[in-house]
Amino acid sequence: MSGNSIGKLFTVTTAGESHGAAYVAIIDGCPPGMTLSEADIQPDLDRRKPGKSRHTTQRRESDEVKILSGVFEGKTTGTPIGLLIQNTDQRSQDYSKILDRFRPGHADYTYQQKYGLRDYRGGGRSSARETAMRVAAGAIAKKWLKEKYGTVIRGYLAQLGPIVLELKDWNEVENNDFFSPDAARIAELEKYMDDIRAARDSIGARVNVVASNVPVGLGEPVFDRLDADIAYAMMNINAVKGVEIGAGFRSVAQKGTEHRDEITPKGFLSNNAGGTLGGISTGQDITVSIALKPTSSIPQPGRTVNVKGEAVEVATTGRHDPCVGIRATPIAEAMLAIVLMDHALRHRAQNADVKSPVPVIPGSV
Amino acid sequence: MSGNSIGKLFTVTTAGESHGAAYVAIIDGCPPGMTLSEADIQPDLDRRKPGKSRHTTQRRESDEVKILSGVFEGKTTGTPIGLLIQNTDQRSQDYSKILDRFRPGHADYTYQQKYGLRDYRGGGRSSARETAMRVAAGAIAKKWLKEKYGTVIRGYLAQLGPIVLELKDWNEVENNDFFSPDAARIAELEKYMDDIRAARDSIGARVNVVASNVPVGLGEPVFDRLDADIAYAMMNINAVKGVEIGAGFRSVAQKGTEHRDEITPKGFLSNNAGGTLGGISTGQDITVSIALKPTSSIPQPGRTVNVKGEAVEVATTGRHDPCVGIRATPIAEAMLAIVLMDHALRHRAQNADVKSPVPVIPGSV
Amino acid sequence: MSGNSIGKLFTVTTAGESHGAAYVAIIDGCPPGMTLSEADIQPDLDRRKPGKSRHTTQRRESDEVKILSGVFEGKTTGTPIGLLIQNTDQRSQDYSKILDRFRPGHADYTYQQKYGLRDYRGGGRSSARETAMRVAAGAIAKKWLKEKYGTVIRGYLAQLGPIVLELKDWNEVENNDFFSPDAARIAELEKYMDDIRAARDSIGARVNVVASNVPVGLGEPVFDRLDADIAYAMMNINAVKGVEIGAGFRSVAQKGTEHRDEITPKGFLSNNAGGTLGGISTGQDITVSIALKPTSSIPQPGRTVNVKGEAVEVATTGRHDPCVGIRATPIAEAMLAIVLMDHALRHRAQNADVKSPVPVIPGSV
Amino acid sequence: MSGNSIGKLFTVTTAGESHGAAYVAIIDGCPPGMTLSEADIQPDLDRRKPGKSRHTTQRRESDEVKILSGVFEGKTTGTPIGLLIQNTDQRSQDYSKILDRFRPGHADYTYQQKYGLRDYRGGGRSSARETAMRVAAGAIAKKWLKEKYGTVIRGYLAQLGPIVLELKDWNEVENNDFFSPDAARIAELEKYMDDIRAARDSIGARVNVVASNVPVGLGEPVFDRLDADIAYAMMNINAVKGVEIGAGFRSVAQKGTEHRDEITPKGFLSNNAGGTLGGISTGQDITVSIALKPTSSIPQPGRTVNVKGEAVEVATTGRHDPCVGIRATPIAEAMLAIVLMDHALRHRAQNADVKSPVPVIPGSV
Repeated sequence: MSGNSIGKLFTVTTAGESHGAAYVAIIDGCPPGMTLSEADIQPDLDRRKPGKSRHTTQRRESDEVKILSGVFEGKTTGTPIGLLIQNTDQRSQDYSKILDRFRPGHADYTYQQKYGLRDYRGGGRSSARETAMRVAAGAIAKKWLKEKYGTVIRGYLAQLGPIVLELKDWNEVENNDFFSPDAARIAELEKYMDDIRAARDSIGARVNVVASNVPVGLGEPVFDRLDADIAYAMMNINAVKGVEIGAGFRSVAQKGTEHRDEITPKGFLSNNAGGTLGGISTGQDITVSIALKPTSSIPQPGRTVNVKGEAVEVATTGRHDPCVGIRATPIAEAMLAIVLMDHALRHRAQNADVKSPVPVIPGSV
Repeated sequence: MSGNSIGKLFTVTTAGESHGAAYVAIIDGCPPGMTLSEADIQPDLDRRKPGKSRHTTQRRESDEVKILSGVFEGKTTGTPIGLLIQNTDQRSQDYSKILDRFRPGHADYTYQQKYGLRDYRGGGRSSARETAMRVAAGAIAKKWLKEKYGTVIRGYLAQLGPIVLELKDWNEVENNDFFSPDAARIAELEKYMDDIRAARDSIGARVNVVASNVPVGLGEPVFDRLDADIAYAMMNINAVKGVEIGAGFRSVAQKGTEHRDEITPKGFLSNNAGGTLGGISTGQDITVSIALKPTSSIPQPGRTVNVKGEAVEVATTGRHDPCVGIRATPIAEAMLAIVLMDHALRHRAQNADVKSPVPVIPGSV
Repeated sequence: MSGNSIGKLFTVTTAGESHGAAYVAIIDGCPPGMTLSEADIQPDLDRRKPGKSRHTTQRRESDEVKILSGVFEGKTTGTPIGLLIQNTDQRSQDYSKILDRFRPGHADYTYQQKYGLRDYRGGGRSSARETAMRVAAGAIAKKWLKEKYGTVIRGYLAQLGPIVLELKDWNEVENNDFFSPDAARIAELEKYMDDIRAARDSIGARVNVVASNVPVGLGEPVFDRLDADIAYAMMNINAVKGVEIGAGFRSVAQKGTEHRDEITPKGFLSNNAGGTLGGISTGQDITVSIALKPTSSIPQPGRTVNVKGEAVEVATTGRHDPCVGIRATPIAEAMLAIVLMDHALRHRAQNADVKSPVPVIPGSV
Repeated sequence: MSGNSIGKLFTVTTAGESHGAAYVAIIDGCPPGMTLSEADIQPDLDRRKPGKSRHTTQRRESDEVKILSGVFEGKTTGTPIGLLIQNTDQRSQDYSKILDRFRPGHADYTYQQKYGLRDYRGGGRSSARETAMRVAAGAIAKKWLKEKYGTVIRGYLAQLGPIVLELKDWNEVENNDFFSPDAARIAELEKYMDDIRAARDSIGARVNVVASNVPVGLGEPVFDRLDADIAYAMMNINAVKGVEIGAGFRSVAQKGTEHRDEITPKGFLSNNAGGTLGGISTGQDITVSIALKPTSSIPQPGRTVNVKGEAVEVATTGRHDPCVGIRATPIAEAMLAIVLMDHALRHRAQNADVKSPVPVIPGSV
């Protein structure tokens, strides 16, 4: 059962490969009556697109999105939204060297064994280029959440290799090539990346994402908890190896008196929960942190096997990001937006008539 | 859209509350022809059940499972398997003190606001007692995976508060009340738990789970990656706040040359990937680590609000686990088993006819 | 992918076999806050249950339903509702004669070949006894639809073999053993059934179902049209071989000027559409008609093969309905109720904020 | 929950409107390794496309399909197949007359009330033009079923208004503009259609579809019965008002001795069941019959209301098929192919290891 859709009620299905004709997505379930045009989507695509600085892949894709359906006279109609992004800057010849061997740490080997054959050009379906469509879908979800609840979803680079970045200023995040929230560390990041490229190596990263003004009540326990669907969505981003909600792995060494977020009529006193209790949003900020592994496609040769199972070496000479984490911030935001919008629709399906007699705790919408 | 089912092809649906009449589960999609009886399921339920030592809740439930359907003359028939576990040791009066106020860190408040009303007895649906049914379903999945592929799924307590446990010996795990893989540390664990109880507090934990002999090819990218579905399943366990696959958050500071698992004809040289590449199993061990927060229901009073939104204090005097992580090992194993079985069925739906010309790397089934 | 669930947002999952321990169902997605007890469900079960007259099977089952979960202090909580019906009057020895051979027209052969083995007692999972659980779930849906929209769902026997029954009086339907809407024909029906039983044969039937006070807007084209989901639900009833909406097969010979239901400000002038246009409810009555084949389990011997593939004869001597259509009315009502409630929830998930500027046509809620 | 996808494991999702930029489809779950190009799909699109004769709409669309993804070096890769069909011959100005009023019998009114706004050009999403994408997806399913099982899926026009057509010769079906299986009746059909057009009216039709060489065992009772999913798929075709499997409504007046298909070692002796028993394929031909209503968009004026709810008249002057049934044969074939392929994948997910000891009855694959 192929899994190229995400979301139960706000459903995003994508198709396309790195070196195919085009990427296409169908977004089903967007409520009708929302103003929408390509101009609402393109900015997030531009934030993610490659080739913006020397620290990301030099493949130059305009990543221009075209709305094919689902919008009439500037408004969503409630029918499925078709999106198209053409591929333009393909250099498939770059891949001739890896067509008979498997890059360690890459999906080459597993795709080959699962399907019996594979599109080796640029990673085919496993290329992170596919995330462009998620960013496009996420932009639609962000817009709807903003208009409906005032929800704001933002992310930043929290760590690059050994360099830990504090959230100094949300306004700085968009002012640099790294989504760094600390302007004072940009030079350090640039130097680190220059050195990594010079060493023909790559490096991991951590990205944090925060959703504010989330209404209380989203999430469908016991299995479709809000945090579980967030974990699913984040782990679906290429290269992600870990997901935390709130205190995350710090919870392991916390005591109950320390971890539990006490409540007052004026609001919660802390947010170790990261905005969910029992799998349902509390109204506090949803805080998520993800670990991204270093790019596996690197110029330094490594040991592997070829299609005959023989020991060979492989080195990747195509155009690749030395740190996939740098461009991951818009992707993580998009995934969080898709999950929240899906759960907002799910919540009201069952609970549209609910009127709780209990006052909403401030900070809880 | 309520989310009380997990799995697309091996589908487990549960119902029941902590203080209701009974828990019930329907398991749909189990292949026919497998021998199955209660005796295959009860041992895992007994591993999870409460009241086995002074370190867990003193509620005494036999957790005896009854198969209602789907098995004929000792074999599964391919029709849905109905399971029933009666509740026997309920003390609903214990909960009268919290019926008008919300325990901080607990699902009380979010259930109230989501549904407009709540079953306050023992946490109702949000009680971890519901995981008994997952353990029962997981036992069926474990049996099928073992018979089909020789897959073995095992877990252990990897950390309890500040105490980090090494995997010294799988054989020790079942010999103590903590699922500790290091017999030498049991006394230390007991002392720590006795102190936490005396302090009327609780503590977090980390549990590791490993699946061995997993065939190559399981996982359905780009959205239903094997690791994404594992993250989803694990984050659905009560109290889990973080999930890692393979190197997890250690990946953040790793370089590509360090992280990528090089390949030789004799096998992979390391397992930072944790057994998945591109969302598809490699045939290596699947390694998962989860963070569990400390129990929120503790005897120490905490600040909160009542149903009128007024500031009050709450202290929990019912029977609770001071460390939910202690009983989490069988649950985590069960969730991993359910995901793997689901993906095994999904894989063959599309790829039953695939014959890859590439030799399977040893260590990959 | 086993298919023992129906409904996307109001989801009914059933398990159980004719001669197993019990039937169980889990109903997920019922909105919270509705008063509910067994007394709301039992009457529909009693309408369907066997042994009420000499014209149905003489198996005597109390079909007593027990709510296991999802209801607290008399109200639904929004968590899954577990239902249990014990089997009490089983005579498995009746089936020893058919354990090695396949009844023509019955599911014996297909279950055997699909699953490789089968529970031959009473048809196992293929027994129409499973529909008791659908009737129970349907009773919950009927109650919710009634309270929310004033929707009323009713059915009647429209044809029994050659005897065509007109809808003379809804009030008569519950006053006889046939769900006949024409009191004047009861004697004729009784005589026909007595003759069929004497001839050791069985007979087909047609059942009509009508839903009134259905709001405009339910249905999710292009694939989950309301009428398509109704057709699916009805064809899932044992023995159903045909489904019509509105004019149904009469449409084949109709002209456009005749078929189209003209509209006035006071309402539609006819209802050939049967209450749906473009797969979406119009607000008119939903009218459905189904064809039920004659029971395949009959005392007259027929040619068949045994488990070795050899030519043999088979005659069924157990207790069976000579016309399954007689008890089908409550089942068809239940299926329609489940579909309508599911679509009501689906509709508001996407369209809860819609305010159409166009006046609602009277007759459309 | 929008419903623009069909199939659980072979999943077809479509987007696009009659007068939008393009139609797009994503087909997820096609097994890898099948040769596929546009040339495999285009012939069925050409069979369905408008403007081929004077008896169908004069809109001239090339309906040229382009594969965007999922195929590499001429073979399916197991990743999603993206399809694109551009709209080229739109005359949106034709629709200015109906933008403020609702055609009786058309989806205009229901779309308006469901979504609060509508794309009135050519019916928008409700246009039967969307079925082009189903035909494209169906062509892929047909190819796979043919190669895997030798399954052949064929349809024909069985009735046009009062003219009932017998299945005289499968070879004639493709030799005329009506998919008539009886060459001797073509002149009669042409005359009837010329008269209907002259009368500015439209007419209903019946289409029969047959699948041969279907393996035994497909179908997932109790809810996803093969016949139930076929009924769902057929009722999802624009204008369909009734569906029959096998004897269909003839079953109502049949006796059990007449209806049941007796079995011999050489095969079944009749096929009243239409190829399914208990919701599972028997291996006999799957026979389906559908009723299509007459086109609602006709030149004869009819009574209706406008957007203010006032009584007005409406006449449709755009280009429309006077009998939608004429072009429905390839669509019905496609829907049956999609359902059968989906169930073939579903069956093997659970039952790939099944080896029934019972011999397969000839005629059953």
